[in-house]
Amino acid sequence: MRLVITVEYYGKNYVGWQMQRNGISVQEVLEEKFSKLLNEPIKLFASGRTDSGVSALGQVAHFDTESSFPITKLHLAMNSMLPSDIRIRAISEAASDFHAQYSAKKKTYVYRLYVSRISSPLLDITHAQVIPELDFELMKKGAELLSGTHDFKAFSSTGSGIKTTVRTLYSLTLQKSGNEITMTVTGNGFLYNMVRIIAGTLVFLGKGKLTLDDIREALDTGNRKKAGKTFPAHALLLYSVEY
Amino acid sequence: MRLVITVEYYGKNYVGWQMQRNGISVQEVLEEKFSKLLNEPIKLFASGRTDSGVSALGQVAHFDTESSFPITKLHLAMNSMLPSDIRIRAISEAASDFHAQYSAKKKTYVYRLYVSRISSPLLDITHAQVIPELDFELMKKGAELLSGTHDFKAFSSTGSGIKTTVRTLYSLTLQKSGNEITMTVTGNGFLYNMVRIIAGTLVFLGKGKLTLDDIREALDTGNRKKAGKTFPAHALLLYSVEY
Repeated sequence: MRLVITVEYYGKNYVGWQMQRNGISVQEVLEEKFSKLLNEPIKLFASGRTDSGVSALGQVAHFDTESSFPITKLHLAMNSMLPSDIRIRAISEAASDFHAQYSAKKKTYVYRLYVSRISSPLLDITHAQVIPELDFELMKKGAELLSGTHDFKAFSSTGSGIKTTVRTLYSLTLQKSGNEITMTVTGNGFLYNMVRIIAGTLVFLGKGKLTLDDIREALDTGNRKKAGKTFPAHALLLYSVEY
Repeated sequence: MRLVITVEYYGKNYVGWQMQRNGISVQEVLEEKFSKLLNEPIKLFASGRTDSGVSALGQVAHFDTESSFPITKLHLAMNSMLPSDIRIRAISEAASDFHAQYSAKKKTYVYRLYVSRISSPLLDITHAQVIPELDFELMKKGAELLSGTHDFKAFSSTGSGIKTTVRTLYSLTLQKSGNEITMTVTGNGFLYNMVRIIAGTLVFLGKGKLTLDDIREALDTGNRKKAGKTFPAHALLLYSVEY
């Protein structure tokens, strides 16, 4: 039986989704509890990794089990065993050919910024600080420029073994509320660090450190140096995965 | 010279505002840095204590100094020395008879709840969970009942040496957004644990564990047992103090 889970986690205390030598990963915590409950070794396959410190509202993963443990009981039992910063929001049976990564059609990430000269201890939990002034309208133009299908090579950290760096962003929007800015991006896939580099690029644009022409050049040439810096992990949230 | 500061802090790592034997307080961190910078022992007087784990957006405190250290420089220097979970939002000179506690006219607290059968790791950072069902309209009636001037003895934990337990709540409102409920309360003063007990009482009312008559009786008799339980500290925020 193939099961699919939707997982919410606060990433602060983890080295990310995937196992690493330098700390505890969300994946290994889940696998350990599932293996214990189902009394067989459980291997999870997620929609994709999230980096150290990144949180998720709707990470999706699947696994196979021989167990006939009732799903509702499994859900309750898992949540009672998990640490409070990881929760399974939903669990259900999936088709045998469902794959959390390869069947994914769209992913949505949220990146959270706030604009202030003085850092905010309360916003720092979930947001990245930007020092004013910031040209919000120009940032929106940058977001328009990045929307659609492009080679996002310049907007990724060096990762090995990627076939293509072309991705499609179905939408990339910026919303302002008081001094907070929420960037929401939906795409068919994301390169390593891509959302954090897009956030950094739009902020650099808003602060006059980059121009719209720089972004065009980044898209055309794949030159990483023409894009902005990789913004902090804690402000990134894997919001949802669509199938 | 008397100076007044507005302080924001994330309370998770502190035993509260005031010094305690079992951990670090926000007050002692601030006093240590001020004393170092101003090269004299600095003693802070806050608008009031906040409990262990409680956060503040706008705690206010005053202190006296003989130093002529320029205020703007002091502000920047302090914020560069403070841990990232404490920030001075504003600093200014005050009248020599200003007192952060005794001159305070109004205080506003915010208490944050969310309604969900499954706990949310991301909301748990700042909110207290309530299991559905919850009668929100009834909670609003309870809030109306508690508004105004009353003897709030039943809504306080045993504290010693308080002259009167009569307080005035200028407003007590509940706002719902999705599954989140924000309780905002402004009063001329608050007893020990009063906001957390009011939050607990309104939730108990919404869940049918208490009735409006119980709340009336709690106000009339001062019987702590007729009010709800003290809700968790981490969901409480000292929002502002008015003078």
